[in-house]
Amino acid sequence: MISVMEALELVMNQTMQFTNEMVKLSSAHGKRLMEPINADHDFPPFDRAMMDGFAISFEKWQNGQRNFRCHLTQSAGEPPQDCGEEECIEIMTGAVVPAGFDCIIPVEQVTCFSQQQVQFDESRNVKFQQHIHFRGTDSKEGERLIDKGTYLRSHHIATLASNGYNNICVQSQPTIAIVATGDELVEVNATPLAHQIRKSNVYAIEALLSAFSSNIQKFHLPDEPAVIESWIRSVSLTFDLLIFTGGVSKGKKDYLPGIWQTLGYEKIFHGISQKPGKPMYFGKKENQLLFGLPGNPLSSLFCARRYITPFLQSQLNILLPAPTIELLTPLENKTSLTQWIPVQFLNEHWITVSFNGSGDVNGIEACVGFIEIPPHTIHTRFPLFELP
Amino acid sequence: MISVMEALELVMNQTMQFTNEMVKLSSAHGKRLMEPINADHDFPPFDRAMMDGFAISFEKWQNGQRNFRCHLTQSAGEPPQDCGEEECIEIMTGAVVPAGFDCIIPVEQVTCFSQQQVQFDESRNVKFQQHIHFRGTDSKEGERLIDKGTYLRSHHIATLASNGYNNICVQSQPTIAIVATGDELVEVNATPLAHQIRKSNVYAIEALLSAFSSNIQKFHLPDEPAVIESWIRSVSLTFDLLIFTGGVSKGKKDYLPGIWQTLGYEKIFHGISQKPGKPMYFGKKENQLLFGLPGNPLSSLFCARRYITPFLQSQLNILLPAPTIELLTPLENKTSLTQWIPVQFLNEHWITVSFNGSGDVNGIEACVGFIEIPPHTIHTRFPLFELP
Repeated sequence: MISVMEALELVMNQTMQFTNEMVKLSSAHGKRLMEPINADHDFPPFDRAMMDGFAISFEKWQNGQRNFRCHLTQSAGEPPQDCGEEECIEIMTGAVVPAGFDCIIPVEQVTCFSQQQVQFDESRNVKFQQHIHFRGTDSKEGERLIDKGTYLRSHHIATLASNGYNNICVQSQPTIAIVATGDELVEVNATPLAHQIRKSNVYAIEALLSAFSSNIQKFHLPDEPAVIESWIRSVSLTFDLLIFTGGVSKGKKDYLPGIWQTLGYEKIFHGISQKPGKPMYFGKKENQLLFGLPGNPLSSLFCARRYITPFLQSQLNILLPAPTIELLTPLENKTSLTQWIPVQFLNEHWITVSFNGSGDVNGIEACVGFIEIPPHTIHTRFPLFELP
Repeated sequence: MISVMEALELVMNQTMQFTNEMVKLSSAHGKRLMEPINADHDFPPFDRAMMDGFAISFEKWQNGQRNFRCHLTQSAGEPPQDCGEEECIEIMTGAVVPAGFDCIIPVEQVTCFSQQQVQFDESRNVKFQQHIHFRGTDSKEGERLIDKGTYLRSHHIATLASNGYNNICVQSQPTIAIVATGDELVEVNATPLAHQIRKSNVYAIEALLSAFSSNIQKFHLPDEPAVIESWIRSVSLTFDLLIFTGGVSKGKKDYLPGIWQTLGYEKIFHGISQKPGKPMYFGKKENQLLFGLPGNPLSSLFCARRYITPFLQSQLNILLPAPTIELLTPLENKTSLTQWIPVQFLNEHWITVSFNGSGDVNGIEACVGFIEIPPHTIHTRFPLFELP
């Protein structure tokens, strides 16, 4: 069996081929940009007032002028007004600084303003070009603003909008099939017989991965090799990612690994020294990746969070280190398996959540995610894998 | 002016009145549960095999029996089969352990299995009730599984599904209006004149808050008090949250604070000792909250992230401490204002992103969020406020 870190590396080494698509600005957030974005004009587009105050010619100030006639007001959104340089112009933040003016004196430094006459405070220091954001000092027309391949966060949406990008070329989201296997499973709205249980893993994994794709379909296959084989041969072909839950262990009815081999999937690994989730399988065929998750609810969800989530984050170019949390008391892993322990945040502290094994999804109500403890270690600080 | 912490507390002290709504299981993820969830049956619902192996009667083992006749197989999803206790049953993980059997011997401990005879390894330790997950040991029918008020994460979706909840009562999402003000603003698809700029803040804030509501509407109002007043009196009434950008500073055309006062909004604060975003306003009227964000792109987005995001998280019962990041070198804030500095993760390190002031949204392409430095401090570790 390989370690968690080895398994993660084998997953992360894979890349997927995505197509591109054009989306509206309102749908671009959270997607990966697939065209470079250049400035369509200078930023700022004009010499822009950064304070409310009065625009003057600095030369006049240097020559000792402190009283200025003022009969014009320049507001944001108005074309620049025409005015002699011996006068001053009352100006608002965001307004164009008209030609010939190169200094703004804030409104607080006016000692008297009445009858179209402004008098400035002698004692204040006034600098050439102060409080003006000059045209093109942020970015020049044609300059690269966002590189192709960037994950689009909220601030990028502002850049796209201010540069006139109403339609944006982004990476298509992966198409994902989540397949429950097992004859014991019935629908959520069914009343299970004594030996049956309702399907739940596919719903939880769909929720977990919903941030990455709105093209997720759920399936349920019986423990019949011929049916499973035929589904994989036909329906599965349209999906980028196949995620199976259950049927990957060593039981008599754990047909899946055998079927995948028959159908030409390359096994990348089968079995990880971790708890829960030891029997996990990972394989591929052409441009399709295949995750075989164990059937227990916590096993399948934690495996999906630990391997599939970072893989999809890397394909979006958004992968960041997991945040670190600190427990009140050290936690020891005496086993030779990496352990995943659910945690909650209670009374300003991080603590572990006790539960009754990997089937007990009901028991981790308070859990916000899990921490990872490597084998034979004792620590207080751990990476947190939040469950969205 | 109040501090960032004082402002945050004043925001977080507010609560909103939300209605409840019924949603399908597939739409419940990321919402706040508004009914308690109880177990609709015992978990597990039957004595469940936890290993692939053979079910025996422990009494027979204790009496020295090591060879068992075996002509039945019990798979997951099958009703329990009937078999004499002197025999054993081949059993699969997840299957019902039939009555009379109370011990499972893993398949690895079989020394010989042929012609319907199983011989077990003498030397292995076998315990009463081993490898059986007994009915009701995780949760009993009727037991509380998820409290009312819980934020629904992916593992809760598994609990809802396995307990047959197809329709779930959740808190309605807030209705949010994001209002751009300013005569200088034109549409994204327009070509701005020399003194104009395209609207961008409303798109960025919409993206930022999209995780909290799909009921977000964007508006643009001119710098005309009568139009603004009439919009607030009529259209704004249907929104839980009003977010204005621009028009809250001290300029001649910064009409908003005066209009809000006229219309009966209670000012909770106006001005925070922070950079960017100093002129931010916060007020309320009846059950409606009003955020007046400064007009510069970084000011409005960072203020929304620092105040509105945690407020909405608290209303969903999802608020967690911001993760801490460590810079390579200490960062000093010599000013008396709290500073927000954009950061990026590059070559496995967190570093600051240099930019050209709060108008320079184009300049922070690489930024994944910002850190906060209190006034007159020097630190290496900072809370990270990620920008989704």
